[in-house]
Amino acid sequence: MKEKRTLMLPGPTPIPKKARLAGAEEIIGHRELECEELLEEVVEGLKYVFQTKNDVLVLTCSGTGGLEASIANTLSKGDKVLSLCTGAFGERYATIAENYGVNVERLDFNWGESIDIDLVEEKLEADNKIKAILMTHNETSTGVINHPKPIGKLAQKYDCLLLIDAVSSLAGIELKTDEWAADVVVTSSQKALMTSPGLCLVSVSPKALKAGESADLPKFYWSFKRAKDRYDAKKQTPSTPAISTLYMLREVLREIKEEGLENVFRRHKIVTKAIRESMKAIGLKLLVSDKIASKTVTAVKLPQGIEYNVLRQKLIDDYNVYITGSKGQLKGQVFRIGHLGNVSRIDILSTISALELALLKLGFEVELGIGLQAAQKVFYEEERR
Amino acid sequence: MKEKRTLMLPGPTPIPKKARLAGAEEIIGHRELECEELLEEVVEGLKYVFQTKNDVLVLTCSGTGGLEASIANTLSKGDKVLSLCTGAFGERYATIAENYGVNVERLDFNWGESIDIDLVEEKLEADNKIKAILMTHNETSTGVINHPKPIGKLAQKYDCLLLIDAVSSLAGIELKTDEWAADVVVTSSQKALMTSPGLCLVSVSPKALKAGESADLPKFYWSFKRAKDRYDAKKQTPSTPAISTLYMLREVLREIKEEGLENVFRRHKIVTKAIRESMKAIGLKLLVSDKIASKTVTAVKLPQGIEYNVLRQKLIDDYNVYITGSKGQLKGQVFRIGHLGNVSRIDILSTISALELALLKLGFEVELGIGLQAAQKVFYEEERR
Repeated sequence: MKEKRTLMLPGPTPIPKKARLAGAEEIIGHRELECEELLEEVVEGLKYVFQTKNDVLVLTCSGTGGLEASIANTLSKGDKVLSLCTGAFGERYATIAENYGVNVERLDFNWGESIDIDLVEEKLEADNKIKAILMTHNETSTGVINHPKPIGKLAQKYDCLLLIDAVSSLAGIELKTDEWAADVVVTSSQKALMTSPGLCLVSVSPKALKAGESADLPKFYWSFKRAKDRYDAKKQTPSTPAISTLYMLREVLREIKEEGLENVFRRHKIVTKAIRESMKAIGLKLLVSDKIASKTVTAVKLPQGIEYNVLRQKLIDDYNVYITGSKGQLKGQVFRIGHLGNVSRIDILSTISALELALLKLGFEVELGIGLQAAQKVFYEEERR
Repeated sequence: MKEKRTLMLPGPTPIPKKARLAGAEEIIGHRELECEELLEEVVEGLKYVFQTKNDVLVLTCSGTGGLEASIANTLSKGDKVLSLCTGAFGERYATIAENYGVNVERLDFNWGESIDIDLVEEKLEADNKIKAILMTHNETSTGVINHPKPIGKLAQKYDCLLLIDAVSSLAGIELKTDEWAADVVVTSSQKALMTSPGLCLVSVSPKALKAGESADLPKFYWSFKRAKDRYDAKKQTPSTPAISTLYMLREVLREIKEEGLENVFRRHKIVTKAIRESMKAIGLKLLVSDKIASKTVTAVKLPQGIEYNVLRQKLIDDYNVYITGSKGQLKGQVFRIGHLGNVSRIDILSTISALELALLKLGFEVELGIGLQAAQKVFYEEERR
């Protein structure tokens, strides 16, 4: 008998059964009232999750498409931007902007560290031509959180836009779009929003819309203006949206609302703590410190003598458990466990069990159950509160 | 009791039940073997439908996104293209190119007419700077087919690229990509491919790839090179694809293969004939002649005294039957019936029944059953062959 799948990736994440079945509904016309009502409920639900009164636009694409749209809609060729890079996804955001002919100044931090706000201010102080700051809220490649709030303050002080890649954070880690003055926030459907990949959700502030009026980068499909105008006029999207994924997303957003955003964030924190404590108990080293640790993905250093591909394949073959590695300079150095969206305590315990067994089989000395125990203790203590 | 829905739009089209349920499968990681096998089966199935040995790239977006990608990947700013416009979608293709700073010469034909090949040759003869021809295979707004074959010959003769919007034709109307020398062919998932919107499928010839090497329009998400390289190396997409829609598409492509492409096209022809004969029998006027009539969508002139919105709403309210109107200069002048993909003879007869009843109720004199009879005759004759 094959074990049931335990999908512990930083996206795509498991889709709740009710949402999967909602996606199997019969298709409807995208210009029909029923679809307008669907889209409106989704957008209102997203505003709750984004904690915003800004427009939230629904694009049919993956997260990368939304990041591209955030550049194409707010900037002109040759505009200067400051890109805060703490890992592979920060670098990707910078690369997209460069591909569009934007003048990108990269402020690189070591992989595994978070943004140093003082260095950001130095850069802004030194160059008043910077039109936008690009940042990654949750750097998936390293499992580091960067806090948008102080950067939002700087963006206001130095009058530039703050564009945030929140692909692997939104709905898993607190992001107060309006309170923290985030001008564009991009996320996608297959992460903490627990649906199929295919939708990208983007909040856009009035300041970003205003900047967009003079932004000359070419776009049509990505146009925020087209999306906003169509939604305002008719509660529609300019092109046919991914309707089946919208069905799923409506279901998930209802569930998030029922659970309450605060509880969703708390659940992610507990699960993160359980994973981190268990890894320490097993004797593995975490890539980043507790203080800057992501609440949706955890990077763990591979112990001496254990090869990533071998560990990964053993987890798949023996337990049907899926973890992942990292990219760039961390390739082969760490494994990563995604723990966002529809991930339960039982999933966490399954993963730790499988990991202990696989490591032991591969020759790493671990006392079976020690990581499990550490995680259980976290759950027990948190449940008693 | 509410009638069951009869969705007769030129997309989105009804998704076969088996495909809808396939879309409800548990999600998998996009870098896992299982997803690579899924993508490879889809791409091979698409090559059969596209009738091509070219690369077929899978983008997560709607058809418009694929059209944008076809421009961004083959052209440079200021390049001259000839855009053949026979309706709203031809105009959209031209607009996308213009938004990218391409020098677009529009060759406009009257709405309801098809491309005049002699005029195309005149243009190409007169201007040797034309780098690409943009054409719409099936102009959805008017229900007209434009034949790519002679245009492909001209593209070869005058050494330019042929880019084809096949969004509402592919898998419903014959398109021999390789034989007719189509360099880029764009279609999307929610038309004759009968799945949820969210995927765009694009075939790219070696000539188009070659042109792409010097194309300087900005792109990242749309990059054919990134898509091709990733697929060639790993049978993956650069960004997370719409996995649930890929599940659906795999199912549909299996069904198309089982039915056989020739039979699929024949089915679309029969259904078209049935609709056209029934409309004539009812006493309605078709917008376009039989010779250039689309096999996936039919535009019918609204009779004197019948308002489009009233007719449409009556069909929805009384029979749960969905038809649509048209755009631009045809707005309010015609209604359109989509008949592509998973549309059965019973659906056609249901639609004709509802239409006869609605028209009679709205004061249009029609002998009940006369359109039905005409359609039945077509089916009867075709089935006896």
